[in-house]
This record gives sequence, structure tokens and C-alpha cells, in this order.
Amino acid sequence: MFKVGIVGDGYTAADLLRLLAGHDEVDPVMIFSTENIGKRIDEVYPHLTGFYDLKCQASDWELMKKECDAVFLALPHGLSVPIAMELLPAGVRCIDLGADFRLKDAGLYERYYEITHAAPQMLEEAVYGLPEIYREKICKSRLVANPGCYPTGAILPLVPLLEAGVLESQGIIVDSKSGVSGAGKTPKTSSHFCEVNEGIRAYGVGTHRHGPEIAQELSLAARQKVEMLFTPHLVPMNRGILTTIYTRLRSGVDPARVRTILENKYREEYFVRVLPEGVMPYTKWVYGSNLLDIGIHYDEASGRVILVSALDNLVKGASGQAIQNLNLMLGLEENKGLKALGIYP
Amino acid sequence: MFKVGIVGDGYTAADLLRLLAGHDEVDPVMIFSTENIGKRIDEVYPHLTGFYDLKCQASDWELMKKECDAVFLALPHGLSVPIAMELLPAGVRCIDLGADFRLKDAGLYERYYEITHAAPQMLEEAVYGLPEIYREKICKSRLVANPGCYPTGAILPLVPLLEAGVLESQGIIVDSKSGVSGAGKTPKTSSHFCEVNEGIRAYGVGTHRHGPEIAQELSLAARQKVEMLFTPHLVPMNRGILTTIYTRLRSGVDPARVRTILENKYREEYFVRVLPEGVMPYTKWVYGSNLLDIGIHYDEASGRVILVSALDNLVKGASGQAIQNLNLMLGLEENKGLKALGIYP
Amino acid sequence: MFKVGIVGDGYTAADLLRLLAGHDEVDPVMIFSTENIGKRIDEVYPHLTGFYDLKCQASDWELMKKECDAVFLALPHGLSVPIAMELLPAGVRCIDLGADFRLKDAGLYERYYEITHAAPQMLEEAVYGLPEIYREKICKSRLVANPGCYPTGAILPLVPLLEAGVLESQGIIVDSKSGVSGAGKTPKTSSHFCEVNEGIRAYGVGTHRHGPEIAQELSLAARQKVEMLFTPHLVPMNRGILTTIYTRLRSGVDPARVRTILENKYREEYFVRVLPEGVMPYTKWVYGSNLLDIGIHYDEASGRVILVSALDNLVKGASGQAIQNLNLMLGLEENKGLKALGIYP
Amino acid sequence: MFKVGIVGDGYTAADLLRLLAGHDEVDPVMIFSTENIGKRIDEVYPHLTGFYDLKCQASDWELMKKECDAVFLALPHGLSVPIAMELLPAGVRCIDLGADFRLKDAGLYERYYEITHAAPQMLEEAVYGLPEIYREKICKSRLVANPGCYPTGAILPLVPLLEAGVLESQGIIVDSKSGVSGAGKTPKTSSHFCEVNEGIRAYGVGTHRHGPEIAQELSLAARQKVEMLFTPHLVPMNRGILTTIYTRLRSGVDPARVRTILENKYREEYFVRVLPEGVMPYTKWVYGSNLLDIGIHYDEASGRVILVSALDNLVKGASGQAIQNLNLMLGLEENKGLKALGIYP
Repeated sequence: MFKVGIVGDGYTAADLLRLLAGHDEVDPVMIFSTENIGKRIDEVYPHLTGFYDLKCQASDWELMKKECDAVFLALPHGLSVPIAMELLPAGVRCIDLGADFRLKDAGLYERYYEITHAAPQMLEEAVYGLPEIYREKICKSRLVANPGCYPTGAILPLVPLLEAGVLESQGIIVDSKSGVSGAGKTPKTSSHFCEVNEGIRAYGVGTHRHGPEIAQELSLAARQKVEMLFTPHLVPMNRGILTTIYTRLRSGVDPARVRTILENKYREEYFVRVLPEGVMPYTKWVYGSNLLDIGIHYDEASGRVILVSALDNLVKGASGQAIQNLNLMLGLEENKGLKALGIYP
Repeated sequence: MFKVGIVGDGYTAADLLRLLAGHDEVDPVMIFSTENIGKRIDEVYPHLTGFYDLKCQASDWELMKKECDAVFLALPHGLSVPIAMELLPAGVRCIDLGADFRLKDAGLYERYYEITHAAPQMLEEAVYGLPEIYREKICKSRLVANPGCYPTGAILPLVPLLEAGVLESQGIIVDSKSGVSGAGKTPKTSSHFCEVNEGIRAYGVGTHRHGPEIAQELSLAARQKVEMLFTPHLVPMNRGILTTIYTRLRSGVDPARVRTILENKYREEYFVRVLPEGVMPYTKWVYGSNLLDIGIHYDEASGRVILVSALDNLVKGASGQAIQNLNLMLGLEENKGLKALGIYP
Repeated sequence: MFKVGIVGDGYTAADLLRLLAGHDEVDPVMIFSTENIGKRIDEVYPHLTGFYDLKCQASDWELMKKECDAVFLALPHGLSVPIAMELLPAGVRCIDLGADFRLKDAGLYERYYEITHAAPQMLEEAVYGLPEIYREKICKSRLVANPGCYPTGAILPLVPLLEAGVLESQGIIVDSKSGVSGAGKTPKTSSHFCEVNEGIRAYGVGTHRHGPEIAQELSLAARQKVEMLFTPHLVPMNRGILTTIYTRLRSGVDPARVRTILENKYREEYFVRVLPEGVMPYTKWVYGSNLLDIGIHYDEASGRVILVSALDNLVKGASGQAIQNLNLMLGLEENKGLKALGIYP
Repeated sequence: MFKVGIVGDGYTAADLLRLLAGHDEVDPVMIFSTENIGKRIDEVYPHLTGFYDLKCQASDWELMKKECDAVFLALPHGLSVPIAMELLPAGVRCIDLGADFRLKDAGLYERYYEITHAAPQMLEEAVYGLPEIYREKICKSRLVANPGCYPTGAILPLVPLLEAGVLESQGIIVDSKSGVSGAGKTPKTSSHFCEVNEGIRAYGVGTHRHGPEIAQELSLAARQKVEMLFTPHLVPMNRGILTTIYTRLRSGVDPARVRTILENKYREEYFVRVLPEGVMPYTKWVYGSNLLDIGIHYDEASGRVILVSALDNLVKGASGQAIQNLNLMLGLEENKGLKALGIYP
């Protein structure tokens, strides 16, 4: 039985606990909090009642180093760097669900997150935690940067096609629609029920922090700078991200190759499903699960390939993917604790 | 053209402005705020764009006394008393959308609202602003206590029946289900989208502040202390309160009298609709309107009368009723600015 | 590995398949349909993609008798009786998720369901499938009547208290609020998105079919006819039933006994959680799980006990409870395939 | 007082009646139905209770010709052509809320709607009913093709810019997100509450019928064939369409011209609001109103102009725009009956 710790008590921490309750080789033994110190975790999250005998406690790195094989850092950006610096030398594997280790370019991080990166030298070591792309590196890693929710939905459909060179690398449009849990647990006007319910809006147009993260991974795949525009929207639902991606097929490429490439890439993957011709993904089909679905449409008139993906932003977009990474880092079966289907309807 | 002011900038203030934009004899000329001083009202509430040229300003009672014929106090409890004390002597009519003047018993106010009432002597003058019950008093009043949203839905169906003596005055159950806007605009965990959406819960069981308000009006109607239990629930929707009321018919009373009494009482009322036999109210039928619908079911086996009412908590439950009161106080047609139907679907 | 069949392809069938995908001792080997014959199950329910290699097929009772150890009947009322008559003699255990075997009184069935019961002699054999109440009988049974969703939420909190004689058996009010999936998969005006979203209504006031089912079980527990009024409401959410129950404590009974009785009854139960003093259930805490939560409030002024329960109508209210019954009938661990927590938020 | 008739009793008919209840120069005197013949309109739509004394009746064209000055045809495509042919010669103005007169190219109509157009010669006479673009023609017209809901949201932001020649006419992406009422009142799986709630999906990818309608109007504005890709999505809300439009600025054009052109075009329009720099539209700000909001973002890195629009699909996207057209055709003030603001929150 591996012992893990969780730093933070927001929604991603809660979903780690929900999922780990069904994981028989990993045991969450401590959770560090700032606002709920001393409270039982089922007082903070009553849906966990009966499944954990854990109290939120103040951070105690010595204890964590002594007790934990691995740690999930579920924190706002900027806070994970010093913690990882503390834990890694003691042999504690770190999975950061925040943004501190995702961008390889510290300058870009500082521009978008508006703070100085405290340890840019760690960025090279950190592995971008998309198992379907970087599995081997993750297995050998002790520091994983768990991807953002939007990037996961944009990168998995695009990377195999950019690697294969069948798409134009310029003029890619990524139009994403997310449920509200991605905005976190802290009450804000923008996540107030009445402000969100019965409406849809775009936000962060042209400025959202997940833009450069997506561009980084697409450019790595294309081996050239990809020009991409990312626009997120907020949808009145708890969970789910639908991403509609508009691309152009490279001149002379057989459109049928798009499907072949994606099906070949993901056939053996437990968590990625390429849907049949004519079927487009639906966030409800993956609700609560670690699955990501991909649909493909080729528009002959315009030569455009439309890719659509669906995932649960708290699972494949955060906590589920983090556990998938943990399983790889610990040498466990990759889908341990993650086998549940989507809840439908 | 009468000039009115609004003190406060929460949801009830916003709905006052929405409704008054269609009122051709009343003009909102100033709005006092604490958090948004200096901002245009359409910056705070962009849905008002193009309809008002108003800025939120700091409170200025001298200006208000000079300019306004009447004022809406849309404030948390405790704040309205000193303002009303300031404005009334200057001849400015006050309609308090908060709780400061609803309970006739200052001791009860202090028990439930946990503050001392600053001017208990004003409670006698204040008229409880349910026009269908207290119309004549309201017309002559300069200080109106606009009823709570839940009480409006409980009192209008019950009062005529308790006045007529056809119901037992003991053992009344009021089970209410409200949309989230009743909890106001300030972000809180309990109104966070993800905490509310896809769930229903009871809250304030046995302790909600609207309990004594309902009991006061029912007891006045019954001319004896009514024993009543009130339980509110939070429903994942923006607007609307459905109230399911369980009562017992007095022994020997013809059940048909229930419908007759309610139909006679409300036949001439513009805003109260007694629905036909077999039709039960639905909050969607009154969405955004100042209407209140009542349905009646007699359960022969148990001798129980089930009354169900529906209203929009921000309109008939707050701002619409406040304008209805204003119209009466100013001698205008009672339904001015309030003629819109519910938006369906 | 036990083999099971499913007759019907509505939402309860879908949730049986979702849950059984995580059950390692039971394998769904066939599903009978009328509308989707020949379609792959993941064409009908794409969220199942990758988890089943099953096609919907026309009913074939001989095949079912040969292949299946047990069968779930997920059908409209009236259709299960002849099927059970066919399968039981061949040794196939039957769990009926419909209403055909719930009421012990065939006359009552005929009054409420408006058809003649085709085999009233089977009603005595059929066990009412509430494991927390009838576990021993279920273990020995071959025909289980899986309870209705509303009855499960009303019966589990009340039965221990009525058995103990601490509550008045007259004047019980059961006010329930349900998500829409309880109305099934067939499109109807009453389940059209726009007709349901942003509204709440009562329906079936005084006439709902779950009324006599609740009364039957309460009366058995109280060993006298219980007088109970049941009113269901439709809430704009997919899953979940909240039940608010108003009762009176018997004169002279110590109110503390209510909590003691319920905690003693359910302490060892995996699926029933009696929440601590001051905490009231929330449907979101059990979303997608087989759990049922109970909260207790004693109102001193009126001598009333308010009980509130929450469950997922498709799981503890239908398919999860059916699998719980199956596990008991097959001698398996009762919580096999049912260990998942609620998905929150 | 002008007299109007309504043919059809779906959601657009209901919203015509809601809005016309506040119109003091137009009176709906008859409504033709097929499914609800003989029922009072407030039995079909109880939210109208107290506002109309109308019964749904079987079609009677002679009566309509005798009584009505104008008629709204709120019907599925294909049904309006013969009715318009019957009514127009009798001097009855027709506003078709369906698709029969929108496309100028009968061949295109037949390809997308899969029926032969019964009177292609009428297509030239019919005026496309977007008052902000075709006001003068509408004033003189007797046959108006009320635009589709999606096209209204795409055309109004784009047409002035294409007319001015500041945008590339190729590679325009229109990504739209709609509430469910656009799918009509008839119960279908795709509008079943549980199938829609808590999810978002794309549909009709590359094949939706509003695609050619948008392309027609954009091409007319650009005076050349515009290449445009339209993808609609279904959002779990009743009303509202948000349209995110991706375009490229023509080389050498000053980006500031985009805002100037749109502000100049719409400054005097009652129903179109160009939002200030940095503010993006939100469907909730126009909920229930005839308003359409436009937001503008220029992305310097890619040279792209992102336009976002928001409208209520049943009002500016259907019934409100139809009344706006009626007002113009009858020589009334254009905003009669349409002055209400959006309901927020």
C-alpha cells in the first residue's frame, strides 16, 4: 500500500479523495489545508462521510517526507514550487495539479501568471503529465506537471495529427466550453449560481492562461511554432469541457488519414475513445469518469477538419489524470481507481 | 412624473430598475451604493445598458430629501431603520424591502435577527405591504414594510381561509422551495453554482426568519395564535418560489367552500390567479412577472386541504410588490409597470 | 461468474449496466429490447462505449432460461408478471424494478395502476426488496419487488421509528422532491427540457402511485393503519430525491430517542448514513451512488420531528438497490459493484 | 387597433402572445392549431391565464382573410407557402417565422429542407426580415421571411463589416451555442431534460440548415461568395444564443475601424447594443428581450477579429423580431410591445 498526501482542499482535492476511495493500492494518509485546519474531511465534504477518517491539518513537511511516497499539490499557482523543492530531495514524488511546472518557458509563465518563477531550473525536469503522449517519461519521473483542463481537451486530438503533418499548423481555432467547477471552490461573482445559470458567455478572450500551454504542446508536436487562437466559454453545468477545434487539412492529404491516425494512436488507450464516423462527443458521456472522447468531421467544401473532444474537467482534466500519472510513477496498473464509466443521464 | 431613489444595489435594486424602465409615471433618479460608488449602473448591471444614465453614488440624505418623492430601501436588515427615521420627517415615503419593519413585535425581531431594533415605536406605523390584504392602509401610509418572499407565498393563500374560519389553526405545514436569487447577490459557498446546481436541500429547518413573519400574519387573520411549521428548500433555479401548504379542514366545513372563498377574494385582483380545479401552480408560469398563482386540492381520505402557490421571489416576492405598494402610496394605477406576463418557457 | 439478463433498455437498464461494469462476479450477458433490437448497446447509450460488446435483442425466454442465473425486469408495470411466471419455474431469479410485485393487495394495485393483476397468487411470495428492512427474506427469495424511488426515501427513515412506537401513526406528511430521470427515458412534454428547466411544481397531488406503497410499508412497521399524505414535486435536475417528512412525537417520548433508534438501526449498514446533529441531507452528496442519507430535526415548539432523506433515484432508488438485492440473492458481498461515492460537486 | 392571427401553437406562437399582451395597437384575434383545437389558449399555455380569451381553432382561411390585417405563420417548413399564397391576394400581410421564404435560391432550399418549394416565384417578393438591414423594404412589404435564430446572431455583427470590406471574406468561423427552446415544443429525445441537462454538445456539424441562410446574407453584403463554416451547439438553458465569430482583418486595415463601423451602424438602433471595449456579451443580459448585444475583440498576434453576439432565440431570434417586422409593415413605432429589458439574473 502506497501512502499519499494531498496539499490543498479545493474541488480537485475532493475528487482525488472520491476516486482514491476506490483505489486499493494507494491510501491518502494526510491532507494539508489553510482554511479548514482541524476539521474532519467529511465535515468539509460531507459526500465523503463514512469513507475517510482524516482531518485537515496544517502543513507539516517533515511529517509528509516521513510518511508519504507521493504527494498531490492541489494549489493555486506559485505555491507548488517551494513545496516541490522541499519534498523532491526527500524522495517524495510530486504531482502538481497547478500551473507551476507546465510551461517550459519561465518567461512565458511570468508573463501569463504575473509572478516570477522561483525555480526555473526545475522546469526541465518536470514532465508534462499527459500519459497518452509522455507515458515513458512519466514512468521515470519524480515531478509531474498535471496538464490544465482545457489543454487536455485540445492537445489529445491535435497532437497525433500535427506529429503526422496532415494539418496546417497556422490558423487553428480552439473554441472551448466548460462547466463551472473549473473555476474552483472559492465563491466569486463569476461562479455565483444566479450569475451563471441560464446563460453562456465567452471569457478571457485572447488572454486565457491555457492558451500558451496549448500552443507549447502543439508546437512541440508540429516541430514548428503553431499559430492557434483559444477562446473559453462558461456553460451552466458542473462538470465537463467540450472543445470544438477548427483546422485545415494540408493540401493533398487524404481526409481519411485523419481518422486512421487518431484511431491508431488511441486504439490501445483505456481512457481515450475515438467515436465512430457521424458520432460527435458529448460531455455527459464522460461525466465523472477519466475518459476523453474524440469526434471527427471533415467538411469537404472548405477543406476543414473539425475535431471535437469531451472530458470531465475535474477527472481527465485534473484529479483523474493526476491519479493516472501517479499509477505510472508508482509502477501500478494505469487505470487503478479510474475504471468507472460516465454517469448518464 | 414622480421621482424615486433606491438605496442598495443588490438583486432587488436591479429588478426595481428593470421594472421601472417600463413605468411611465415614476423615474428612478438616484441609486446609493457602498461598493460601487462612481460606477455607472450599466457597468454593474449590463442588462440595463441603454435604459439608464445613472451612476451609483454615496449616500446623500439631504439630496434624497430634496429630490425624491419616495425611496426604496433595498438593504440588509438593521440598516433601514435610521434611514427611514431620517427621510420620513422630510416627507419622503419609504418602502423597506428588508426585514426591519415587518415584525410588529420588536422582541421577536431581536430574537430572530439578533440585533436590537433601533426604533420599535415605528413598528406600529409601518404597514405590512401586502396590497391584497392591506390595500387601504398602504394607500394612506408613508412607511411600508415590503413582505418577505416566502411569507408572500404562504400568506396570500391562507389568510382568506383563516379569516373565514374554515381551517384548523393548528398543525399547518408550510413546505417552500425557492430559487437561488432569494439569497442575494453576494457570493457565498451556499450560492456557488457548483454547490447548488443538480441538487436540492432543506435549510434553516425550524429556524428561518420568515417563520415568525408568516405566523404573525396568519395569527392576525385567524384572530388566535396559529401553530405553523415552515421549512424552506433551495432549488437549482434563478427565480421562483413554490409553496406547498398542508392544512386540515375544520370539522363540518363543506370542502367546496375553500375554492369559493379564494375565488371570491381574488377575482378582482390583477396579480393573484386562483387556478381551475385540477391545475396546480408552476413557478415557470409567473417567471419575471408580479403574478401569484394558487392551486387547491382537497384530500378526502385525510380531510386535508393542500394549497400550492407560485410566485417570482424577486418580483411579487420583492421588487414588483414594492412597486405595487409605491403605486398605491402615490395614487397611481396599481399595476403600472407591472403588466408583463411570465416568460415561458 | 454469475450471468444476468436485463429486460428493457430505459434509464434503469442503463444504470444497471453502468454499475455492473464494475462488478467482478456478475456479467450481463443479454439485454432484451423492443425499440432497439439489433443495435449495439453503446449505440443506444454511447457512455457505455468500450465496456460492453452487447446487442439489444428481441425477447427470447428459452435462451434466457438457459443462460441466466438472474434477470432484472426493467419494464413498465403490467409487463413483468408473465415474464416472472415464465422464468421462475426454470430457476431464474427475478428482480422486478417495476411495480408489479410491490403492493401486497392486488385490489389496491388494480385501483392505482388501472389494470388487473395477472397473478395475484405471486404477491405473497414476492419479497419487498429493501435490504435494510427485509435482508433475510431477500437472501432466500427468488422473486424480489424492487421498491419505488420515492418509497425508499420515505420508508427507511420512518420504519425504525414506527416499529419502536415513538411517532404518532396519523398525520404523517411526506413532501418529496425528485429529479427528472425518475420519469423515464421516453420523451414527454412533462420531461421536455424547456418545460422543466427553471421551474418547480407539484404533481400527482393526492393520487401518485407511490402513496399506497409507502402506506403499506409504514403500516406494517406500525402494526396499524398509518394515515399518511404523499406529495411529489419535480425539480430541474437529473438525479436525486429529497424527502421532507413531518411527523409528531408520541406524547411522553424523549426526543433524543429518535436519533438513538435511527443510529442503532443503521450503524452497520454500508448504504445508510444518519448524519450528525445539525446536518441535513443533500441530494448532491449521494449523486450516482447507492447511499441514502438521513437527517433529523426536532422542533420543540410544535413537538414535531422533521426527517429528511436524500438518495439517487436511479441508484438506491432503482438499479443500485436492485444490484444490492441481487448480491444478497446470489450470496455475494452486499456492496459488490456499489462502492462508489457520490460525485461532488 | 390592428387585428392579427397566428397559425401554429408552438413556442414562437406562445411568445408572440406573451409580447402582444403588452402591445396596445395590435390585437391577436385568432389562433389556428391542429393538436389543440377547441382548447383555450391558457389551457395550452397557463402562463397566459387572465390575459386572453382565445380558443385554439381549426384553420379557417376565409375567416382569417375577413378578420385579420396580418398573420404570423409559426409553422414547420413547407407549410407556410400555400397559406401565404391564399392570404396575400386577400390583402393579409404575412410574416413567416419558418424557413419557407428565407433562401432566395429554391434549389438550395430543396437541398437543405428536402422538399420541393411550392412557389419559387414568391421568393423574389419575400423580404428577409432583418429590420436593421432591410428596414425600408420591410416597410413596403406584404410578405416577410423572419430570419432564423442563429442567422440573426451571425448576420448583424458581420454584415456592416463585410459591406465595408474590412474583413477577409474567406475562412469565417461561426461557432454558435443555443438554448433548447430553439428545438421547439414537440418532445424528442434530443430535448428530453435528462438528455440535455448537465451537458453540452455540437450537432448538425457541417449540415445545419441555417448555414446556407447565413452564407446567403454574408455574400450579399460582401458582394462575393463568402466561405463560412457554421457549427451549432446545444447548451442546457431555455433561451439564448451566443455566437462566437472568428474572422481575419484584411491586410492593411486599421483594427479600430471595426468598432467604429459597428458603432456607427447601430448607434440609433433600439435593439442592437455594441458593448464597450473589453465587455463581451452574455445571453443573460438579453433574456426575454428583443435586444441583441455585440462584443468585439482584436487579437493582434493573429490579426484576427473575434465578434461575439448574444440574443434571445425566441425574441430577437423569432417572435420579437416578427413583431418588429409587423410594426414596420403596419406603420407603427418599431419598438411597440418590445420595450422590455432582459430579465436578470
